[in-house]
Amino acid sequence: MSSGTLDSLWLDSLAAATRTMRSSAIRDLLKLTEQPHMISFAGGLPAPQCFPSEELAAASERVLVNQPLAALQYGPTEGYAPLREFLAARMAGQGVPVPSAQLIVTSGSQQALDLLGKLLIDEGAPVLVEEPTYLGALQAWRPYRPQFIGLPMDEQGLRTDALEQQLQRGPRPRFLYTVSSFQNPTGVTMSRARREELIALAARYGLPIIEDDPYGELRYSGERPPTLAALDIAVHGELRHVVYLSTFSKTLAPGLRVGWAALPEALTTRFVQAKQGMDLHTSSLGQAIAYEVSRDGLLDRHTPSIIATYRERRDTMLEALAAQMPAGVRWTRPEGGMFLWLTLPEGCDGAELLARAVEQQVAFVPGATFFANGGSENTARLNFSYPSVERIREGIARLARAL
Amino acid sequence: MSSGTLDSLWLDSLAAATRTMRSSAIRDLLKLTEQPHMISFAGGLPAPQCFPSEELAAASERVLVNQPLAALQYGPTEGYAPLREFLAARMAGQGVPVPSAQLIVTSGSQQALDLLGKLLIDEGAPVLVEEPTYLGALQAWRPYRPQFIGLPMDEQGLRTDALEQQLQRGPRPRFLYTVSSFQNPTGVTMSRARREELIALAARYGLPIIEDDPYGELRYSGERPPTLAALDIAVHGELRHVVYLSTFSKTLAPGLRVGWAALPEALTTRFVQAKQGMDLHTSSLGQAIAYEVSRDGLLDRHTPSIIATYRERRDTMLEALAAQMPAGVRWTRPEGGMFLWLTLPEGCDGAELLARAVEQQVAFVPGATFFANGGSENTARLNFSYPSVERIREGIARLARAL
Repeated sequence: MSSGTLDSLWLDSLAAATRTMRSSAIRDLLKLTEQPHMISFAGGLPAPQCFPSEELAAASERVLVNQPLAALQYGPTEGYAPLREFLAARMAGQGVPVPSAQLIVTSGSQQALDLLGKLLIDEGAPVLVEEPTYLGALQAWRPYRPQFIGLPMDEQGLRTDALEQQLQRGPRPRFLYTVSSFQNPTGVTMSRARREELIALAARYGLPIIEDDPYGELRYSGERPPTLAALDIAVHGELRHVVYLSTFSKTLAPGLRVGWAALPEALTTRFVQAKQGMDLHTSSLGQAIAYEVSRDGLLDRHTPSIIATYRERRDTMLEALAAQMPAGVRWTRPEGGMFLWLTLPEGCDGAELLARAVEQQVAFVPGATFFANGGSENTARLNFSYPSVERIREGIARLARAL
Repeated sequence: MSSGTLDSLWLDSLAAATRTMRSSAIRDLLKLTEQPHMISFAGGLPAPQCFPSEELAAASERVLVNQPLAALQYGPTEGYAPLREFLAARMAGQGVPVPSAQLIVTSGSQQALDLLGKLLIDEGAPVLVEEPTYLGALQAWRPYRPQFIGLPMDEQGLRTDALEQQLQRGPRPRFLYTVSSFQNPTGVTMSRARREELIALAARYGLPIIEDDPYGELRYSGERPPTLAALDIAVHGELRHVVYLSTFSKTLAPGLRVGWAALPEALTTRFVQAKQGMDLHTSSLGQAIAYEVSRDGLLDRHTPSIIATYRERRDTMLEALAAQMPAGVRWTRPEGGMFLWLTLPEGCDGAELLARAVEQQVAFVPGATFFANGGSENTARLNFSYPSVERIREGIARLARAL
């Protein structure tokens, strides 16, 4: 009766790009590691104790009682105007003066990544990424089928010498993507010198840059370097080479799904047009709540308590690693953020280690996942923001046993 | 110094598809018609008086106080499990029994449209749409560059005879898109006979269907026909040819940005994978609030008051049109939803009429906007859900003067 069987009906309709989609290994793992006895360094979750729940509840009530329309009606694609003005003022105070007209609210930074992929990637187009890089960016962009070109990093971040060689060799990349501070997955921060070099290269070679900065405010030690966006503006008087992304997910709560993009003027209209087709606009309620607590100064009051909690957890993990890890294992010492990066002896396989670790009731993400084109099997990403200090100590001991 | 000028830097990086993007004429108009003296039939906004603000405020407080994690932490891409189970039970009660595993929460139905475009459209792929059709669908899909093929409608909805001719002629379309009840923009509902014919054609030709049903619960007169999803399940014992989309935007509030998709099993995993790359998941807070008020029975208690308000507005607009419109102007008589469709005498131009109407302080959307491939300039979409009955009467009088 039917010429299309159940299986072929929809498969015949799939776009070519759809066939390359993969589920996020991290999120699949998260499902696997939800048992209470498992100590998971695999996720990328903020500590729930750090959510300012009471302030958010109070703000939600104020907003829904006093300004129900702002929270419940359709809103402008660009975002809630008072929130955009707040963000403009806050970024200006951080050395990134951008007109609120170029600040667009997004449904988390993840939507901004997907949106930029839609705007900037054609099939086969070269896209430069750090090796390793944020898995969610790879996942957002793979459906657009770019040619990912990985650039090496060291303890100062992206190797700008390797970048320049790549730019000289060509082909012209559509953009370079970097998580400039406390990178996910390595925890490494690009040094000030490298940032200046990168902005100079961007001007010399006409290189667009996407700077993803979700963790910038979560610094536990060391000095905060200027963002690439700030350096770009310092050189050109306006945002020119850099699209800057950030989010409330790490400072307020990820469940709000509210992030933002600061955009060069030349890209803003198209960014808004693309967003309109993607979800009309970001949750009005989430935006109104984010604004309500922000104008009340909550970010500055609350962030220090997040920093204190995560600093203790980072320090605990670093101490436990130093005490427990066998010789030949190395790790990064992040000055902020949520992750550190383990390098196992050459020949060790992170995926095999994970299997043994799960037997010991501890989990992490094998590092190869974070390489656009594979490789570096002897690496692992460990999250220290979610587990308690007790569980970090116990988890690292279990990991040492698995090793 | 710089080899890339400001203008060429980002323009050189644009994806080919980006160049075809257009801003939504409706949303641009909305900005134009925000002056208080303007009576706007142009928007597609629910009446703010119909938002259950107090219940949503109370639910938000309960959720944030009692279950802050469900509302604030990262959540599963598929959606908040209790909400998905509620939706499964509710849809089963409406003759659409779908396992909750195949019900995926989306950031409004607009995200589901973008997502299905990403999954199913390659450049040049044929996509069947009603003429006219929902502008947001065209806007979501244009970046994927399909070949839109328009199918005619009459007062019974999509003309299935024209569809069958098209299917016989080929090429095989990736899918057919229909707003089956109280269509945006025409207000027309597909008759039961046409629905049965469409589901039979889908089986005969292996045709995937996207049924977009945001207004289905807002019926003011007549009898509710089964959804295409219900008929598909009745024939095949499971959802096979139909992806069914709906939303809380018209029954609770659009600012929550919570919709859902009921999917054939064969498509569900890929749908979730694509959503993961697009925004990780829909706002946890919005989902938790939607669930909290829904399990409390608010939908069934509250929807009748929306229906009463909109029925009076629809009736007022129909009466005013009958009293005021000159001979030669025709309009649809929607049994629900938010829009009706005006057909002006042959040779009249909706865009020209709009210019004169704006002088008279009344606005609408020229109908040509809703045709994938243009044409039908002598049409207009009027919204009756947002303006009060007084403003509807006055606005139609102004429109008659403009004519």
